[in-house]
Amino acid sequence: MDVNHTMQFDSLSFDYEIDPKAIEVESFRQIRELTPLDGLSREQQQVVMRIVHSIGMPEVGEQVRFSSQACEKGLQALAAGKPILCDAEMVKQGITKRMIPAPPLCYLNHPEVPELAKAQSETRSMAALALWQEHLKDSVVVIGNAPTALFRLLEMLQQGADKPALIIGMPVGFVGAAESKQALWDCHQDLGVECITLLGRQGGSAVSSATCNALLRCNHNEWY
Amino acid sequence: MDVNHTMQFDSLSFDYEIDPKAIEVESFRQIRELTPLDGLSREQQQVVMRIVHSIGMPEVGEQVRFSSQACEKGLQALAAGKPILCDAEMVKQGITKRMIPAPPLCYLNHPEVPELAKAQSETRSMAALALWQEHLKDSVVVIGNAPTALFRLLEMLQQGADKPALIIGMPVGFVGAAESKQALWDCHQDLGVECITLLGRQGGSAVSSATCNALLRCNHNEWY
Repeated sequence: MDVNHTMQFDSLSFDYEIDPKAIEVESFRQIRELTPLDGLSREQQQVVMRIVHSIGMPEVGEQVRFSSQACEKGLQALAAGKPILCDAEMVKQGITKRMIPAPPLCYLNHPEVPELAKAQSETRSMAALALWQEHLKDSVVVIGNAPTALFRLLEMLQQGADKPALIIGMPVGFVGAAESKQALWDCHQDLGVECITLLGRQGGSAVSSATCNALLRCNHNEWY
Repeated sequence: MDVNHTMQFDSLSFDYEIDPKAIEVESFRQIRELTPLDGLSREQQQVVMRIVHSIGMPEVGEQVRFSSQACEKGLQALAAGKPILCDAEMVKQGITKRMIPAPPLCYLNHPEVPELAKAQSETRSMAALALWQEHLKDSVVVIGNAPTALFRLLEMLQQGADKPALIIGMPVGFVGAAESKQALWDCHQDLGVECITLLGRQGGSAVSSATCNALLRCNHNEWY
């Protein structure tokens, strides 16, 4: 190793924490101090803090919404090793592998999907949900990219598709993202599903996988 | 297919755009309208718009910084198929594969890295940079996760490591993220490197890969 943190430099030196545990502890100390967490359960606090961590903004905590049994049902499903269904490969990549018995499922790049999408003139993200049906029952759904995937899921549930234990619905962007999350929040009781969402335009693969990871950590008794 | 977008529902129906091209066009129409782009080159505008797209916030455009030849050097390196070095698998996953001749490089999960990190009591993210050295020359570096990786890269460059063509430095978070990006911005001229960064706490895998993707699209003559 040529590279040594303690080496002296001529002109510049950078003073920064290099110990991973110390970085994590200090990060969550700051997040807990900066984020409004009043009225949240212990598990909900963990979720909100990891969302804030993934996005770098304490103020997004106020946009998080939990249905009444979201954490409870999500924790149960994850503890039972139920399928985790992701709308995008980046979401799948973001889920902590050491805490799950099998890789999350993502059908976006399944060979059938481009044809399905083309036939309906719709996004690949929503076409991929045709392949979710047999895995939906008691699953944990993690949508971090495509509003169309979240809208399609709501439609499928309306038509009587099997219910996931929990929907983590957090697509990001300008067309349909805020609307799809508002629809999830407005309809979840009628559809009889539990959900965690982040209202507004913000969201994404890192935020949605962080939400799932926060629940996995609760099950593994790792608390911030 | 049981699922059909045009099917009538009893109680609810969702009105949303399902055509991927229409979604993209409308997204970037809104982003161009909402984001301050004055004084930016055509290529810089593309980068800022894709950053805004990935994060869902037009106001982050004001936090983006470009060194004087960042886009030019980045475009050249990508056109020449130089290595793309990523600090995290999610960053690698986010880079558009159809536009690059070979997969990006990420050494975070290389079998040597845990031992290197443990020996130095440092993060795996920074230890992985020991394996970057032979690939650095004229590369495009994309750091979207770990402040320690960005600090370590700056140290390596100070010690005479080969220079990347462009550093996209956009780690996210509370401990070291803002500081590492400020250090990149403050030191890049002394170090003789080009960079694109997003000052402040915000950043992440999606933002940093979106920046690289914006340059790849310019090279492929795909403009918003």
